[in-house]
Amino acid sequence: MSAAPHSLRRADDAAERDLAQTLVQFIRDEIPLARAMDLSLQCFSADRISLAVPLAPNVNDKGCAFGGSLVSLMTLAGWALVELALRRRGDDCDVFVGESTVRYLAPVWSDFRADAQLAPGADWATFFDTLDGRGRARIEVVCIVPGEPGKSAATLSARFVAKRRASH
Amino acid sequence: MSAAPHSLRRADDAAERDLAQTLVQFIRDEIPLARAMDLSLQCFSADRISLAVPLAPNVNDKGCAFGGSLVSLMTLAGWALVELALRRRGDDCDVFVGESTVRYLAPVWSDFRADAQLAPGADWATFFDTLDGRGRARIEVVCIVPGEPGKSAATLSARFVAKRRASH
Repeated sequence: MSAAPHSLRRADDAAERDLAQTLVQFIRDEIPLARAMDLSLQCFSADRISLAVPLAPNVNDKGCAFGGSLVSLMTLAGWALVELALRRRGDDCDVFVGESTVRYLAPVWSDFRADAQLAPGADWATFFDTLDGRGRARIEVVCIVPGEPGKSAATLSARFVAKRRASH
Repeated sequence: MSAAPHSLRRADDAAERDLAQTLVQFIRDEIPLARAMDLSLQCFSADRISLAVPLAPNVNDKGCAFGGSLVSLMTLAGWALVELALRRRGDDCDVFVGESTVRYLAPVWSDFRADAQLAPGADWATFFDTLDGRGRARIEVVCIVPGEPGKSAATLSARFVAKRRASH
């Protein structure tokens, strides 16, 4: 834990929240489907981000969450985790998903959220070192949609690739 | 090939097209995100179904197809393949996706479609036998979003589960 005075931590927190809110607004502005899903920022920290959606625009023919909405929200949460880490560092990259494995474990009958964090064994230091050396790096992210207490309703394991943009 | 007279085959074709069009309309009516994607029926046969979307509502921040739209369209095409086979047979089942692996291979810069068919080694006869015996069966489907000539821009391999609905 940092030993920063309380006021400084609060200023950092506010800057962090601005960065995350700006990113979520960017997603809603630039990706029509994310806007159709009515995606919003639930909470975040340096290691984690949660995005939430209401059920109504994300429902399927059975009245529970549409599989496409579950996987889209988890993919966006993973993408946001990586994008946010890069923006925090001032890095200008294109981030895209390369591959993912999705498990649909239980139906979701209410508004839902996806929590994204790095996969076990993945770390930012290695990712940033590779990015600095090669202008391109990949990182593994895991996301879950919480279901019944202590259980996941859906999980995603995905590899994201960041490519530094050519400077102008 | 069936030896049915030409006129009978044409009537069958028309009934098939009605069944597929009705299913796609059902998807658009019941799944708001599919309507937001502006999904339509591209073509179909007993072994294959293709669903198409325009790029505009499915674009990402980079101007190419959003990963969530690619995976949603492929998942819906796979789901429609299984649902259509059941409706053709008069079977009343809930069909849901259980697990999938997605690969994003190349960006898509135009309107796109997803083609779904059974995975190598999967067959309808085994699926229907299991469904008749147990009231529940699973089947593997593969989908691709075509990219450059002869190449895929995205692929999905998914397992779908059908559960016969309790009769009323």
